Amino acid sequence: MFELLAIDPQSKARRARLTTAHGIIETPVFMPVGTQGSVKAVSPRELREMQAQIILGNTYHLFVRPGMETMRHFGGLHRFMNWSGPILTDSGGYQIFSLAKLRKITEEGVRFQNHLDGTPTFISPEMAMEIQASLGSDIAMVLDECPPYPCTHEYMAQSLERTARWAARCRAAASAPSQLVFGIVQGGSFADLRRASAEATVAIGFDGYAIGGVSVGEPEAEMMQAVEASEPFLPNDKPRYCMGLGTPPQLLELIARGVDMFDCVLPTRLARNGTAFTARGTLNLKNAEFALDKGPIKEDCVCPACSDFSRGYIRHLVKAEEILGLRLITLHNLHFYLELMRKARSAIAEGTFHEFRKTFVAGYAERLPNDNSETA
Amino acid sequence: MFELLAIDPQSKARRARLTTAHGIIETPVFMPVGTQGSVKAVSPRELREMQAQIILGNTYHLFVRPGMETMRHFGGLHRFMNWSGPILTDSGGYQIFSLAKLRKITEEGVRFQNHLDGTPTFISPEMAMEIQASLGSDIAMVLDECPPYPCTHEYMAQSLERTARWAARCRAAASAPSQLVFGIVQGGSFADLRRASAEATVAIGFDGYAIGGVSVGEPEAEMMQAVEASEPFLPNDKPRYCMGLGTPPQLLELIARGVDMFDCVLPTRLARNGTAFTARGTLNLKNAEFALDKGPIKEDCVCPACSDFSRGYIRHLVKAEEILGLRLITLHNLHFYLELMRKARSAIAEGTFHEFRKTFVAGYAERLPNDNSETA
Repeated sequence: MFELLAIDPQSKARRARLTTAHGIIETPVFMPVGTQGSVKAVSPRELREMQAQIILGNTYHLFVRPGMETMRHFGGLHRFMNWSGPILTDSGGYQIFSLAKLRKITEEGVRFQNHLDGTPTFISPEMAMEIQASLGSDIAMVLDECPPYPCTHEYMAQSLERTARWAARCRAAASAPSQLVFGIVQGGSFADLRRASAEATVAIGFDGYAIGGVSVGEPEAEMMQAVEASEPFLPNDKPRYCMGLGTPPQLLELIARGVDMFDCVLPTRLARNGTAFTARGTLNLKNAEFALDKGPIKEDCVCPACSDFSRGYIRHLVKAEEILGLRLITLHNLHFYLELMRKARSAIAEGTFHEFRKTFVAGYAERLPNDNSETA
Repeated sequence: MFELLAIDPQSKARRARLTTAHGIIETPVFMPVGTQGSVKAVSPRELREMQAQIILGNTYHLFVRPGMETMRHFGGLHRFMNWSGPILTDSGGYQIFSLAKLRKITEEGVRFQNHLDGTPTFISPEMAMEIQASLGSDIAMVLDECPPYPCTHEYMAQSLERTARWAARCRAAASAPSQLVFGIVQGGSFADLRRASAEATVAIGFDGYAIGGVSVGEPEAEMMQAVEASEPFLPNDKPRYCMGLGTPPQLLELIARGVDMFDCVLPTRLARNGTAFTARGTLNLKNAEFALDKGPIKEDCVCPACSDFSRGYIRHLVKAEEILGLRLITLHNLHFYLELMRKARSAIAEGTFHEFRKTFVAGYAERLPNDNSETA
């Protein structure tokens, strides 16, 4: 199911291959975020053309709208949205804790009112798995509590224990045929709790392990430390997924720390604000300096935006609020992230990852705040 | 330049071929509207794939933003937007009279403040031609006054005379190499003024003739009468273009009245509101009845939306305000209009247009109001 192909001699970076019901995923991999059954502004055909290997669907959003009756009627998320490649679904926990109202956590599960119309709802670990089984995703995530940042050691420790009990219930619950199930390590910025959470989660036994509770407002250094405090206690022969991250340099730094899978809304969300990724950092294409610029967003880029359109034209589209503008920047940004992962995979396979990472991170000029929900 | 290939024996419908600097246009033809240098939500590649033959650009909008310095810098509209097919530009007159503020018409031209930032501006007939020469369109339109509806016979008659003098100045002004120039017939709902305007415009001599001042708020019957009152005074050997029209049945009715070219924002604008065209009328895809509908928008349609996606999925996208929803409906609606023109061309060539028109109009259930500016 998960085959390690190469390991970087100078870091923990891994080149591997993950087999799912809808296809093989070469890792490290970036997963474009399709919150509501659509990677924002992008068609499935465009995702195929940019060689996206797997996309993410947000269980909470799909549960709220169109709802599970509709999803079952259409035979799951793949058929509903016409995407035949692999899909990972989150459990909905993160959105319940960041978007929903009037939350009340009990041992049994979470009561909340959804953010759209306030309908009172209850979700248990078993229900989170049942919902993901209905969605038919290739990889399902356990229901966890993601405490906000900052959080006391005492609360985090109690939360972890419940999250571990919930994880065991998720593991025992029915999942869809061939569906992989990933556990989630929490623990915030506390190294002892990261270790405890990782060990408890691994003891249950999952097909892969996510590092959650990162990119929730903490400084980047703390985030890296949280990953470093979790990773040693995760098995080498299972994929590791860092949820909701990150900037391009962060992705390379996390790969160097042994992470295989990523999802992040930055490329799609920033695109809708006119911001494009390049190897030197981001460009705000609204800036007047680009008005007469005949060059592409990024020299040597082969994405549909850079192949056919100038910075000046795209700037005009963004300023004029034309949808094609954000479409083109979205395509470029996703292509940039996917290409970064392709280069990382090659570099690991060729033993040049250390140099590649050092050069890229040094050349990249800025860091941006993160947020791991497309509509949060 | 304009070759008549077939004439319907039972109506004035014509099957013809118009040669422009950027390609041959088979008529009757529908021109998708690219107001600000982009057919809203659609890429040039998608326009090519749906076999759009020619698109329309709005001179007023491009003049206001990004402005003529930018357009000249990029070498014209074709290069700016990466569309290598034919482009027709309007003169900007319609938008000056519908969008701009503090208008003052003199014999010399029009003073106005643009709708974006109120910059005081003056445009003369010669400047309208110079701007369109900079845009490098294949077909340029003369600057005319388009009086609002209703309008007195007295005002309309005076306006017509100035419009005719402006038309003569446009004809005398420099245009881009190989650029065709079309005159515009005005006259509102007054048959005598329609005739007078047509005769005055034809006397100047243009490469084609537009019927303007239609779809400005008048009842459909008056609109048809305005076309019927203009058409007999237009030469058979030049293309006729009905500006800003219309619904699918209106297009067939106008083809039957001898019109060859159309532009209209209905397919793109209604798409953004969730409304899709079918042979039986429009569907509001927001309606709950489509929530579990696995069928395509329109049976037997080969557009990208109908080939790959269900009404239920598209409804979900529209309800969730996902950009892909309006993209898909826009593609469907434009494809529907272009396909209607393909069928009309075949029917005229085969001598079956009368039957085709009768059957289509009878099967189409509703009429919608028009508006001929994408952003008005």
